[in-house]
Amino acid sequence: MRPKSQIGNLPVYQPGKPIEDVKRELGLDEVIKLASNENPYGSSPKAKEAIVAELEHISLYPDGGAVELTSNLAEFLGVNPGQIIFGCGSDEIIALIARAFFVPGDETIMADQTFSVYKSNADIEGAVCIEVPLVNGKHDLDAMLAKVNERTKIIWVCNPNNPTGTLLSEQEVTAFLNKVPAHVMVVLDEAYSEYVTDPSYPNGIRYIDKHPNVVVLRTFSKIYGLASLRIGYGIANSEVIRLINQVREPFNTTRVAQAAAKAALKDQEYIAKCREANRAGIEQLQAEFDRLGLEYFPAHGNFIMVDVRKPAGEIFEALLRKGVIIRAGHSKYPTHIRVSVGTPDQNKAFIHALEQVLNVEKAHVQ
Amino acid sequence: MRPKSQIGNLPVYQPGKPIEDVKRELGLDEVIKLASNENPYGSSPKAKEAIVAELEHISLYPDGGAVELTSNLAEFLGVNPGQIIFGCGSDEIIALIARAFFVPGDETIMADQTFSVYKSNADIEGAVCIEVPLVNGKHDLDAMLAKVNERTKIIWVCNPNNPTGTLLSEQEVTAFLNKVPAHVMVVLDEAYSEYVTDPSYPNGIRYIDKHPNVVVLRTFSKIYGLASLRIGYGIANSEVIRLINQVREPFNTTRVAQAAAKAALKDQEYIAKCREANRAGIEQLQAEFDRLGLEYFPAHGNFIMVDVRKPAGEIFEALLRKGVIIRAGHSKYPTHIRVSVGTPDQNKAFIHALEQVLNVEKAHVQ
Repeated sequence: MRPKSQIGNLPVYQPGKPIEDVKRELGLDEVIKLASNENPYGSSPKAKEAIVAELEHISLYPDGGAVELTSNLAEFLGVNPGQIIFGCGSDEIIALIARAFFVPGDETIMADQTFSVYKSNADIEGAVCIEVPLVNGKHDLDAMLAKVNERTKIIWVCNPNNPTGTLLSEQEVTAFLNKVPAHVMVVLDEAYSEYVTDPSYPNGIRYIDKHPNVVVLRTFSKIYGLASLRIGYGIANSEVIRLINQVREPFNTTRVAQAAAKAALKDQEYIAKCREANRAGIEQLQAEFDRLGLEYFPAHGNFIMVDVRKPAGEIFEALLRKGVIIRAGHSKYPTHIRVSVGTPDQNKAFIHALEQVLNVEKAHVQ
Repeated sequence: MRPKSQIGNLPVYQPGKPIEDVKRELGLDEVIKLASNENPYGSSPKAKEAIVAELEHISLYPDGGAVELTSNLAEFLGVNPGQIIFGCGSDEIIALIARAFFVPGDETIMADQTFSVYKSNADIEGAVCIEVPLVNGKHDLDAMLAKVNERTKIIWVCNPNNPTGTLLSEQEVTAFLNKVPAHVMVVLDEAYSEYVTDPSYPNGIRYIDKHPNVVVLRTFSKIYGLASLRIGYGIANSEVIRLINQVREPFNTTRVAQAAAKAALKDQEYIAKCREANRAGIEQLQAEFDRLGLEYFPAHGNFIMVDVRKPAGEIFEALLRKGVIIRAGHSKYPTHIRVSVGTPDQNKAFIHALEQVLNVEKAHVQ
């Protein structure tokens, strides 16, 4: 009954607070959740139709290899089906990579403020995390390179970075990959890639042919609006995918997720609309932050990290009492909050609440 | 880019052949799948209604802790919510247990013909599998006990056993657990428990208070008819559950699966009907096997393992060409096939096809 020595006291993941909990705990009727970078417009209606049609097969196991979805996606992305692996969100792909590749004592390099699932999975496997400080909210690729040694197994690069929203350009990523030794895997987490409108942003998939050590992560949880169904994927050299597949459970995605993803993928018109609406939402929020004199990181996903110049936990609590859930608790940015881009009305309600909260705080100080 | 040394060449799980593949490959219109122990009556209609209602939250992450479902299930089972963990099928609970507890060199004991996911996960973690021969298709608990030493970490007991369908009685399991040392975890996999009508069958959950080394696995994939949605669970002492939870991804089950499971759990009338229909189906199949002079193991799940006295792979192929998918390929039983209990009509069609196949084989021999 002895577990692995390293797993006894790992930190527990703190998800965005569910709307239902906040309503119940605070007795609120209206609650806006801008905490988990979900698509405020939901999924393509075609995805829902596909789910309903799939219900006749509810008692049958899914196609474990997601053959049809893989084929559709491979065509869409311009890769071979053997270069794709699906998971229960891209979270699971991270877990599978860790489980397949890490042995205790391996080193792994990541930013000091990035998606927490890289570190939690490295910790589980007994790998040593080398956390490299962000510079202006951005990955410091040169500093990460300087940490590479013969024990380095994986470097995690989140682009755009969660939670800061900053972008690495094609020039930066290309120069970096040209310097990373072949024995080191580079995971380019592109969960928010479909939101990016900056032309300097690289498509990580284009690196795979030249760099068989690159794995790209994408997801249907963000712009595709299917977070509830847990389906994400990895793209890499087919031998790397084969190795990751070795540790995948036979039926790790559901029939409804596969059906919804197929339908959502086909509706690129919907995706284009969501990208446009998100860009407008970022501009709306940035204009408001400018008006309030608040600094923020350049936002390239569907969220903005803004410095509220107060302890973020207090602002989180005060906003919660006004029915707005955002994200705080970023250890390297104790006065920043991360807010997801909502609909224009949600953004307005958030700004209204934030303004009240900051004014009250100001009044208290006076 | 070096993976764990043990994962390079693991055997790949062979799932039941999908109906769509068989139709396409063999140009058949009607195909019956009796290969994956699914519920031929589907799920409770209330589960489907719950899924449709949940679609308004499609873009929102699920409740990672499945709080409401856990609470309902805890009440139903008479345990505390802290004693339950949900997974992407009980398969994932097996993977989580392996990932949390095994270190390379650990030993783990299982039957030589049982659910393959125990071994595949032990292999991934570098644990040494001690496979103990079944006797008359049944776990040999004394022989398994005799293999326990200070390196033993986990014993896997599948009750009823998949693929043989045999049962261990309360007396046998109680005597076994009283002899297993406290440092050894015993996983009682009860995926088919709701189908059992034999009064000697023990409810594994009742052992947990006295034996904090017991983990019970159950699932919504079998009698509850929700295989497509991937939701199963483990029940154990709360400290054991806490440790398994340490390696669980934050969002490992979907909103629709949680909603469907809640609704399906409430409809116990439906479950009772399925149990009764399954028992009648077993009797129907057994009577036919008796008529054909074929021996079978006592069947306590929703499947029967029958000796067709021919190479099982050939019978599998011949049945496939007649539009009936069953399961062969059990290394310890080369002339046995495993057939899931279908509806009365499906069972009849299977028997009809089997009879033809066996007669043709007989004619060939003459």
